[in-house]
Amino acid sequence: MARRKKVYEGKAKILYEGPEPGTLIQYFKDDAAASELPPQGGLEGKGVLNNRLSEFFMAGLNSIGVPTHFIRRINMREQLVRMAEILPVEVVVRNFAAGDISQRLGIPEGVALPRPIVEYYYKDDKLGSPLVSEEHIIAFGWANQQDLDDMVALALRVNDFLSGVMMGVGIRLMDFRIEVGRIWEGDFMRLIVADEISPDNCRLWDMRGLEIPGREGQQREPGPLGDVYTELARRLGVLPSNVTHTTKPTLIN
Amino acid sequence: MARRKKVYEGKAKILYEGPEPGTLIQYFKDDAAASELPPQGGLEGKGVLNNRLSEFFMAGLNSIGVPTHFIRRINMREQLVRMAEILPVEVVVRNFAAGDISQRLGIPEGVALPRPIVEYYYKDDKLGSPLVSEEHIIAFGWANQQDLDDMVALALRVNDFLSGVMMGVGIRLMDFRIEVGRIWEGDFMRLIVADEISPDNCRLWDMRGLEIPGREGQQREPGPLGDVYTELARRLGVLPSNVTHTTKPTLIN
Repeated sequence: MARRKKVYEGKAKILYEGPEPGTLIQYFKDDAAASELPPQGGLEGKGVLNNRLSEFFMAGLNSIGVPTHFIRRINMREQLVRMAEILPVEVVVRNFAAGDISQRLGIPEGVALPRPIVEYYYKDDKLGSPLVSEEHIIAFGWANQQDLDDMVALALRVNDFLSGVMMGVGIRLMDFRIEVGRIWEGDFMRLIVADEISPDNCRLWDMRGLEIPGREGQQREPGPLGDVYTELARRLGVLPSNVTHTTKPTLIN
Repeated sequence: MARRKKVYEGKAKILYEGPEPGTLIQYFKDDAAASELPPQGGLEGKGVLNNRLSEFFMAGLNSIGVPTHFIRRINMREQLVRMAEILPVEVVVRNFAAGDISQRLGIPEGVALPRPIVEYYYKDDKLGSPLVSEEHIIAFGWANQQDLDDMVALALRVNDFLSGVMMGVGIRLMDFRIEVGRIWEGDFMRLIVADEISPDNCRLWDMRGLEIPGREGQQREPGPLGDVYTELARRLGVLPSNVTHTTKPTLIN
């Protein structure tokens, strides 16, 4: 089996050199990602499901013309992606108050925001990925105004699409975050959606069956989608029928 | 039972005066709509399903900040909508070639277009709703350049959202058309999505179960979603459990 060069290892993923220049292999681990969510430790099979789910969302975005780094899924835990220079700023889009913004601004969880609110967070685990404004980003040279405009446009298109996907399967997209990468095609630079789109960076509430059976007009409170990796994959029809039959990832090259 | 004033009757819908100024009641009939689809005549219960489906899509669009005429569903066949001045131009967005564009430009059905293509059709049943360009629309004063820019922006957001909803339930949104209406809020004019969003104005192909069972790698050809009204409502979880229990619409006012 050929050896591959490890380019980067994070909490939830490993990046290896890809088979061709300008590509990487993204390997999904079972460990919990850095996020606002309470740490859950490893979750058996989570990487397999996130690989499928991120494929589903990224391929969908590609198909409607929102550029992403995704090229194709290789096996249960790996996908081939375009190498991109990741901007040091994460973009968060919030449709409903929850988590960070609820605490920071005193808005009860679940309240609809007046419009989708776009936020930037400086990517630095040691600092806990602090909220920053456009002013900080431009002053420190993390991105320029054109980049920011492009990032907002990308993030809002992802929000429209992803809100639609989730609504189709009875889920409310409360908020999500994306990473954005810079690629060059000849002299032409553009920004694309990178990293992954999965329950590790989406906050999902279950809207199905809110009517209490037999008591019309009465509703239970909406709340976080339970067993989120499996349940989302099941509703979207991408739950592998047999997760155990290829536990060993196949190496490419 | 109070009498209501009929404002308009089309093939698939009747509009009545609403309970308040600036509102209308939109009643969904079972008759086939004018469309590219082959005429199917009446289809028992179609109006009930389209009322639900249009509610689902319009309420979803409202929730992500795409303005529509939809206020709320009243009963099995009726919904309350905002009165708007309907522009005489329909907007069509095409993601994959099918129907009209396949015939006109010789592109095989099912071929992905290089990007979503926006078309305008002049609303005139006697003329068969002919394709028109921006040049025609502005020369004849059907809309101005700002209106057209707003219509394209609306249509592309609807496309992102609706593509997402459909993809979530294993359906490919080939193309769709919307009507756009003009409303005033004080001195401020804006355009909103009007009419309905349902299988009568969306071309939907089924992408589920394309793998032939037992023959990995082999695929059946994608094609139109069968039993489209019922199947779409079922997948989106809005199929009424008992369509027959309120066949008589309740009059409002």
